[in-house]
Amino acid sequence: MNTLHQRIMDEGRNLGRGILKVDSFLNHQVDPQLIDQCGRELARRFERVEATKVLTAEISGIAPAVATAFHMSVPVVYARRTRPVTMPEEVLLTVAPSHTRGLPVELIISPEFLGRNERVLVIDDFLATGQTILGLARLVNTAGATLVGVGAVIEKIFEGGRTALASLNVPVESLAIVTDMSDGKIVLA
Amino acid sequence: MNTLHQRIMDEGRNLGRGILKVDSFLNHQVDPQLIDQCGRELARRFERVEATKVLTAEISGIAPAVATAFHMSVPVVYARRTRPVTMPEEVLLTVAPSHTRGLPVELIISPEFLGRNERVLVIDDFLATGQTILGLARLVNTAGATLVGVGAVIEKIFEGGRTALASLNVPVESLAIVTDMSDGKIVLA
Repeated sequence: MNTLHQRIMDEGRNLGRGILKVDSFLNHQVDPQLIDQCGRELARRFERVEATKVLTAEISGIAPAVATAFHMSVPVVYARRTRPVTMPEEVLLTVAPSHTRGLPVELIISPEFLGRNERVLVIDDFLATGQTILGLARLVNTAGATLVGVGAVIEKIFEGGRTALASLNVPVESLAIVTDMSDGKIVLA
Repeated sequence: MNTLHQRIMDEGRNLGRGILKVDSFLNHQVDPQLIDQCGRELARRFERVEATKVLTAEISGIAPAVATAFHMSVPVVYARRTRPVTMPEEVLLTVAPSHTRGLPVELIISPEFLGRNERVLVIDDFLATGQTILGLARLVNTAGATLVGVGAVIEKIFEGGRTALASLNVPVESLAIVTDMSDGKIVLA
C-alpha cells in the first residue's frame, strides 16, 4: 500500500487534536482507483477468516467497505445513523461516542441483513479510539452473528483503538498506521 | 441491466406512498457486484460527456457513484449533510427538500473539490422528484463548474423528476424505470 502512504504524506493535513484531513481521497472526495486497491488488499489480508458479510458505518466507511466486499464477493451492510422509513420497526441499535462529532451517534441495522449464521468482517475508514467499531461489534453480537475481523484504511495508533479492540479477539488490520501527530507532524509506521 | 430489473422485481417492496424498499441490494445492504455492474453501465452511457468528476449526495448515492467514477477513472465527491470539522469554514451549501425524510436537508461541498474547470456528472441511487439532484446541480453552478449529465440507478418516473430536470439541458439516464407503484404494484418500463 505504498500508494496510500504516499497520498497520506502528500495530501494529508494535520488539523490538530488528532484530526487527520484526508478529504481529497477518502472522506469527501474519493479516489475510486485507490479505494479499490485498498479493498483488494483488505480482502487479501482477511481471505482466511471466511467472512460472509462486510459491515461498516455510514458515511465514510461506505466506499472502502464496498470495495472490500466487492473483492470478497460478499454483501456489505452499512449501519445507519437514523432509521429510514424503509426499515422495520424493530431494529438493532447501539450508541457509540463519536470522536469527530463530540456527540454520541446511533448505529442502526435492520435485523433482516444480519443473521445468526453470518461471519462478519467490520471495515471502516479510520481506526482511532475504536468506539464506532466496538459499537458495530456489539450489533454483531446482539444479532447472534460472529465477528471475524476488523479492518481499517488508516489507523491512528496513538488513540488506543487497537488496545480497545483487543477484547474482541479477532485479527485487526490497517493499511496505514499513523504513529504520531504531535506538533503538526504526520508520521507513518 | 436485466440483473437489476430482476432484483427489483424479486426483492423490491412497495411500502406505499411511492416508497420502494430496495434495502437488500442498494440502500442499506449493498450487493457490490451488482453495483459495480451499474457503475460500469452508467460510465458507458456517459462516455461521451467527458466528465472529470462524479458528484453525489450522502448516503445511498455513494456506492453507485463510486462504482461509476471507478469505471470512468475520475474522482467522486459526495455532498455532506453536515459540515465535518475537516472542511474549510467557507463551503458551498444549498438546501433541498427531502422526499423520504420530510425535512429539508443541507447539501454541503468543500470548494476545494469542485473547481470551475470541472465537468461534473451527478449520480444518485434514486431519481424521484429530482430535488436532491437539482440541489447538486445548483452547487455545480455556484462553483462555476459545468454539469454534463445526471444518472440514477432507479427512476420513479411518476414522481416527475425527469420533467423537473429538463431545464438543466443535460442527458438524464436511469438503469431501471419504475412506471407505476399504485395499488401495491411495482411496474418496470
